Amino acid sequence: MQNKRVVLTGDRPTGPLHLGHYIGSLKNRISLQDGYECFVMIADVQALSDNFDNPQKIKKNVIEVFKDYIATGIDPQKCTILIQSLVPELFELTTYYMNLISVTRLERNPTIKNELQHKSFANSITAGFLSYPISQAADITAFKATHIPVGDDQIALIEVSNEIVRRFNRVYNTDILVESEVILGKTSRLIGIDGVAKASKSLNNAIFLSDSPEVVKQKVYSMYTDPNHIKVSDQGRVEGNVVFAYLDAFLNDEDELASLKSQYRRGGLGDSVLKSLLNEILQSLLAPIAEKRATIIEETILETLVHGSEVARGVAATTLRAVRDVIGITYN
Amino acid sequence: MQNKRVVLTGDRPTGPLHLGHYIGSLKNRISLQDGYECFVMIADVQALSDNFDNPQKIKKNVIEVFKDYIATGIDPQKCTILIQSLVPELFELTTYYMNLISVTRLERNPTIKNELQHKSFANSITAGFLSYPISQAADITAFKATHIPVGDDQIALIEVSNEIVRRFNRVYNTDILVESEVILGKTSRLIGIDGVAKASKSLNNAIFLSDSPEVVKQKVYSMYTDPNHIKVSDQGRVEGNVVFAYLDAFLNDEDELASLKSQYRRGGLGDSVLKSLLNEILQSLLAPIAEKRATIIEETILETLVHGSEVARGVAATTLRAVRDVIGITYN
Repeated sequence: MQNKRVVLTGDRPTGPLHLGHYIGSLKNRISLQDGYECFVMIADVQALSDNFDNPQKIKKNVIEVFKDYIATGIDPQKCTILIQSLVPELFELTTYYMNLISVTRLERNPTIKNELQHKSFANSITAGFLSYPISQAADITAFKATHIPVGDDQIALIEVSNEIVRRFNRVYNTDILVESEVILGKTSRLIGIDGVAKASKSLNNAIFLSDSPEVVKQKVYSMYTDPNHIKVSDQGRVEGNVVFAYLDAFLNDEDELASLKSQYRRGGLGDSVLKSLLNEILQSLLAPIAEKRATIIEETILETLVHGSEVARGVAATTLRAVRDVIGITYN
Repeated sequence: MQNKRVVLTGDRPTGPLHLGHYIGSLKNRISLQDGYECFVMIADVQALSDNFDNPQKIKKNVIEVFKDYIATGIDPQKCTILIQSLVPELFELTTYYMNLISVTRLERNPTIKNELQHKSFANSITAGFLSYPISQAADITAFKATHIPVGDDQIALIEVSNEIVRRFNRVYNTDILVESEVILGKTSRLIGIDGVAKASKSLNNAIFLSDSPEVVKQKVYSMYTDPNHIKVSDQGRVEGNVVFAYLDAFLNDEDELASLKSQYRRGGLGDSVLKSLLNEILQSLLAPIAEKRATIIEETILETLVHGSEVARGVAATTLRAVRDVIGITYN
């Protein structure tokens, strides 16, 4: 058992990070890096599990995600930033954990369940995709992470990891693996600017942390509001209104937010005033991020990542050695 | 593409090897080790996939299986003998291959299919057990094996491996992985001495390569023959007769075998004469094996295995590097 508080977070490098990542997890991480030992993983292997036929995208975005990290204030002096595939101990841990969880249990993962319901996808679910929660359990336990800052759509996966931890400790009569708990971000699922779905790269409805001020403004002004709110004096709906969803997430003054909402509902508050406010808020959030990004020296990126991965390997190797000892398959 | 002929064989260390292993695969290997580059793998990780809660058994039998290898004539000067878990590159290869095969396809593996039909087992099939054919594909391809000496119950698994090879080469537009072909042993499934099922350690119906002459004799004399063949003069059945199944496998003189069968069918050939003959054949097969076993120096076993595993790692690491290059996730 351990007393140390360890955070593991990470992202699949399938695209640059956006405001949804920021508010759902990144912002938390930045505040956590002072109080916790902190591992930030760029999960290239997990990204491969459903992008195996488009690996170029992954390699390119490893670098983009790293830049997003540095730009938002993740500090390689405080956190270990690593590339998943450069810590091969994770593959071996995954293998041992695969014996501790049933296929039936993995099929209850909400993401898989969803795909299974679509007959056309059901037959093409790969072993890799079915098993990614096991790989996540390896990531979490390798670094003995106690706290995982994620969105609420990830809670089910952390539960799988904890089930594996409990089963491992029971089967091998040990306490070397530790369970982890979720730290939820302020807004778990930021809606897309189209109001249709969760903001995502693939739906092209996200505001990226690397978007230029002009693009951000243009995206804010293209946001869906209330289609029946035509004249300024009309009564407007706050629920389902994308601008308010973003204000909920990014306007920190609760009183101002409440007063804007009641004014909008009553009538007399125009969309353009609201959008202008949101634009200002986002610009002042993103300006220092852009500034910090401009200071990143391209040539040092891989070096920093390789170094972080080596540090992470040291930690993961210690866990793996303990796991092999406990299972009883050590040969010297 | 390659011209070199490479053999990979191996065993799950869940018990000492028996005559079924010898006639199904070991005998082939010994003759192959001169004409092929040869890897012999003690598959401790695969053994864990359905013995994860009994790992002590595995570690102990790694040593027993090694002794069986040496005793039957596998020569560490000619073959690389390795322990699977000491070649961690195999775990990583498995991970990449897991993205190339569907869960549905894995469920068509005859072994899994069989378990799925028993409702009580179906829900407890682990991810590790479902995936062991992928791990086998990693073993085969890591060493670029072209030939696999196995029993016919393994043909379906080699086909899975070849499917993964073809898919990998197609998706990543390469030819670095090579397909393999099966070399069938003389008798793929040697029946148990009870006549009920395939000889196996778990059913306690096998003659082990390490059995003493007395135990072998006692097992031969306890074999089921034809229950209606009571007096020597009775007509007897050859089919389903365990003694004849073993004579089929181990009596090399075809003419003598045919003449014994016709005499037995006609009547006039007693079971004890037959059993005495089989006992003689098996004793002269096993005597030099026992002799060779007595020369093994216990203290050198682990050293030889660790050395072989290191040699194997070198080969597997070269394959893995090529695989990562082709996928495009290399970072320096």
